[in-house]
Amino acid sequence: MVRYKATIAYDGSSFAGFQRQPNKRTVQGEVEKVLQRLNSGDSVTIHGSGRTDAGVHAINQVLHFDLPQQRDEEKLRFALDTQTPDDISVKFIEQVEDEFHSRYHPHHKIYQYQIDLAKARRPFTRQFAAHFPYELDIEAMKLAAKKLEGTHDFTSFCATGSSVEDKVRTIDYIDIHHDIEKEWLTITYKGNGFLYKMVRLITGTLLKLGNNRLYMPVESILAAKDQSLNLWTAPAEGLYLVDVIYDNN
Amino acid sequence: MVRYKATIAYDGSSFAGFQRQPNKRTVQGEVEKVLQRLNSGDSVTIHGSGRTDAGVHAINQVLHFDLPQQRDEEKLRFALDTQTPDDISVKFIEQVEDEFHSRYHPHHKIYQYQIDLAKARRPFTRQFAAHFPYELDIEAMKLAAKKLEGTHDFTSFCATGSSVEDKVRTIDYIDIHHDIEKEWLTITYKGNGFLYKMVRLITGTLLKLGNNRLYMPVESILAAKDQSLNLWTAPAEGLYLVDVIYDNN
Repeated sequence: MVRYKATIAYDGSSFAGFQRQPNKRTVQGEVEKVLQRLNSGDSVTIHGSGRTDAGVHAINQVLHFDLPQQRDEEKLRFALDTQTPDDISVKFIEQVEDEFHSRYHPHHKIYQYQIDLAKARRPFTRQFAAHFPYELDIEAMKLAAKKLEGTHDFTSFCATGSSVEDKVRTIDYIDIHHDIEKEWLTITYKGNGFLYKMVRLITGTLLKLGNNRLYMPVESILAAKDQSLNLWTAPAEGLYLVDVIYDNN
Repeated sequence: MVRYKATIAYDGSSFAGFQRQPNKRTVQGEVEKVLQRLNSGDSVTIHGSGRTDAGVHAINQVLHFDLPQQRDEEKLRFALDTQTPDDISVKFIEQVEDEFHSRYHPHHKIYQYQIDLAKARRPFTRQFAAHFPYELDIEAMKLAAKKLEGTHDFTSFCATGSSVEDKVRTIDYIDIHHDIEKEWLTITYKGNGFLYKMVRLITGTLLKLGNNRLYMPVESILAAKDQSLNLWTAPAEGLYLVDVIYDNN
């Protein structure tokens, strides 16, 4: 078997998430359907670097799969790109060593959360950004974000429904960029792993705090290690998986 | 009657164009439906600065309409914005003098044409940019664009189906911006008026020329004043009406 690493982008709007589910339209399902066709009808399983939820987008999601014969990388990319639906784009394909595993090979991830701050929501990005046309104290948000950087037990920022036991993660940085003229806010997260809905829960919390509607300091939320705090989960359409960066790669 | 000027944005993807047509979903139709509701059921006609075709977007389209009573501008904007569908956004409303006419008051227009040059089309902009993943000689395009600037008879760049007799127009400038890193091309047009499909015909011609597939110099196309040259009309989804700038306003 020959292993391939693929980098894909997708508009998450019309998917029930990345992971294959019976009778639902998923990214994995659509890519595997095409790969099976390209593999003489034999099924091919893809392994993503992680799942993304319904509505969440990816600019660079990484996955791997095995094929019985060696293929020309660009021809394979082109075939996959043109045969997958319009909301999936196959950007790069390269042959990799058999040991490569998109999920278990140590890596860091970059996520971005996009927020339209304009009073009248821009129609072009209504499926590609959250809308938050309210007062925001950006400096307060930046201070709070600083307190979440580093290694912490992020239990409070993990949605229920996750079976992961160890909830300690490291956030390398949280960058908040406010474009005043464009009335746009971008929050970028880099870390060695993120819990279930963690980025959306942190984003929701930072927005509530910036709008002066958070009645508990972020330090206390973190210290509580409590999954039942009813934090606001910012909507899926603002979230992008931007990059998966493998260690020593 | 009190006259209002409104600035709206719309995602043209799901509209049969700006202008009202029976049994079709149009921008004018949707806005007028809400205005009628806000006007105690009495119909209100809106007048746009011009039409846009099916699939063409607007970042700032200007229109005017009359209401029997004076309204609070921001309340009226908010009511219109929230009651129109998600693909229309009402950005500004202001009361204007009765003499103001969005179409006949002299103005200049800025159009932009967005082109995704990446091999694998970005899924996020598939309804918001054309895809042209082919070789382009940008310098040749810039030279040709310069020859179209100024006052000319643009008959060759006017699609059939237009009843306009005088086909002389002035293009103030055509700016071609190539973002190499982003693999993106933006062509900006400013002029005192554009003929039916003129921007898309010029864009298509510039792209063909850049790709070395235009077998007639632009000067000859212009000089021919011939509507049957079978020029390529670049697709609607790449085109945006960006601004309507009224003289002495």
